[in-house]
Amino acid sequence: MAVPTFAEVQEAADRIAPYIRRTPLLFSRSLSDMAGGEVWLKPECLQITGSFKLRGAFNAILSLTPEQREQGVIAYSTGNHGQAIAWAADVLNVNATIVMPADAPKNKVQKALAKGAKVVQYDRMTQSREAIGMQLLAETGATLIPPGDSPAVLAAQGTVALEALQDLPAATRNQLALFAAPCGGGGMMAGCNLTLQALSPGTRRVAVEPAAFDDTVRSLASGTREHNAKSAQSICDALQAVTPAQLPFTINQPLLGQAISVNDNEVLAAMRFALEDLRLVVEPGGAVALAALLAGKLPLHGASAVIVLSGANVDMPLLVQALA
Amino acid sequence: MAVPTFAEVQEAADRIAPYIRRTPLLFSRSLSDMAGGEVWLKPECLQITGSFKLRGAFNAILSLTPEQREQGVIAYSTGNHGQAIAWAADVLNVNATIVMPADAPKNKVQKALAKGAKVVQYDRMTQSREAIGMQLLAETGATLIPPGDSPAVLAAQGTVALEALQDLPAATRNQLALFAAPCGGGGMMAGCNLTLQALSPGTRRVAVEPAAFDDTVRSLASGTREHNAKSAQSICDALQAVTPAQLPFTINQPLLGQAISVNDNEVLAAMRFALEDLRLVVEPGGAVALAALLAGKLPLHGASAVIVLSGANVDMPLLVQALA
Repeated sequence: MAVPTFAEVQEAADRIAPYIRRTPLLFSRSLSDMAGGEVWLKPECLQITGSFKLRGAFNAILSLTPEQREQGVIAYSTGNHGQAIAWAADVLNVNATIVMPADAPKNKVQKALAKGAKVVQYDRMTQSREAIGMQLLAETGATLIPPGDSPAVLAAQGTVALEALQDLPAATRNQLALFAAPCGGGGMMAGCNLTLQALSPGTRRVAVEPAAFDDTVRSLASGTREHNAKSAQSICDALQAVTPAQLPFTINQPLLGQAISVNDNEVLAAMRFALEDLRLVVEPGGAVALAALLAGKLPLHGASAVIVLSGANVDMPLLVQALA
Repeated sequence: MAVPTFAEVQEAADRIAPYIRRTPLLFSRSLSDMAGGEVWLKPECLQITGSFKLRGAFNAILSLTPEQREQGVIAYSTGNHGQAIAWAADVLNVNATIVMPADAPKNKVQKALAKGAKVVQYDRMTQSREAIGMQLLAETGATLIPPGDSPAVLAAQGTVALEALQDLPAATRNQLALFAAPCGGGGMMAGCNLTLQALSPGTRRVAVEPAAFDDTVRSLASGTREHNAKSAQSICDALQAVTPAQLPFTINQPLLGQAISVNDNEVLAAMRFALEDLRLVVEPGGAVALAALLAGKLPLHGASAVIVLSGANVDMPLLVQALA
């Protein structure tokens, strides 16, 4: 598996442009006042299917040969990647099978099914999604599109940072101090690192994780890919990685400035802030970087930052809980 | 009071560009499938201050003479116009006084106060906001910026339709069948009518009102400005006009294709749809055109539509009610 180049990010941007939303870049006065520096938000929660994952899904399927497309695709996913694969496969007339944990948010499962995908559910505590995926591959001849360990997926996730840099005012772009994004397996951060290293090498990149799934925090410290406890719990269903994915970690290890974590209460506060102040629905995992900023864990000291809101797929009862 | 021209809409677009957000135009697959035609959304709920009103506020204050700016501005408003004037006045260093009903949503009052404006509250049942505004004018020498009867305000509201037309794919723009927007006093619809009449005269324009405040529905039918009952109640606080404002009605009467109304339950369903499917917080009044579409009152028969989501300033308990 080759590390994708920034040229591949640019190619991905052209390839996926007809199929995705170019989400806006939103300046927030209130966040800027609170954080003591210019804060810009990249709301991928407004992306079609409600997460940035659609970028990688389209790029991966569009990069298949006609013969591969005939055989269909398989994805394992906590939800957003699977939903994105289901959507892209439907648009491109490709058969898709999605392997999802049995405790994935109902809206994510339903939306994959609504797009005509076959959904296979498994128990996160007792079964391995990778093993189930491999078995399905052997049975069907389909192509596996993993959420992290895919050069085509990672290159496309780098378009999040590419668009953000393009949309910043020149004065801010030339001295962007911080780029912070949610981190599960590390795929988005890896793609964005490719972009930032090429276009804005002086920008510090910070990955933000849920406290119970702080594998990247620990992996950066130890220099090796650490695992999360099997019993770990978090409201951030989208970020429940077992360990940093291999290819993303290869990219992220030398290019990340830092990884930090936030707890569930900090995430709920960020979801509430997003609803009340930004008027955006953000799912728990999509709100962790905002949560870190609001919790004072990303001090700006007058400098400028881009914060990624990566997803929006939250069941409504949890949204009500955030408002309570 | 002169009817503004489309040239004034274009001038307003240039004048306010540095101060407002160019909100995105979002295609919705699910709404298109439901409605049987291409549906595009203009989410002014993502505008700074959470409503399109900021466009008119900036254009009106930027159009004042230096001497007028010195004397300050006054606005009466159910909330969004007042909040917009407070924001624009703060940015432009102008003193502002906002006259608001005592039952306006708390978040609207607080946000006006937070921007340094003076807020004067009144009882909608027993007092006239116009009379209070006039008294303040006499006392202070400030300039009144009404939400509807102001050519500068109306011209700027027309930029909502201007941006939407600019952002549509050419094939859709050339045969846009429907433009539907929320209607209170009729200011946004009037500005957008100026734009549509100039650039897309074949597009049918529909104003949508709350059932209890259907003054434009009845005024179009009778040919004269009808009033709403003093005792009328609706969850759409932003659309509680007493009667169509004079200048907007002069514009809207010959240019509107239709006005229709929706009830509170239809509005709550639209707010819920916005949260679950669009991932947007939309306030009751901002959701009425979407509510009409979802209720089957805007059949598309394969044609294309732009639906305006005009505002987002809803108190959180009401948002929870929409989710219940």
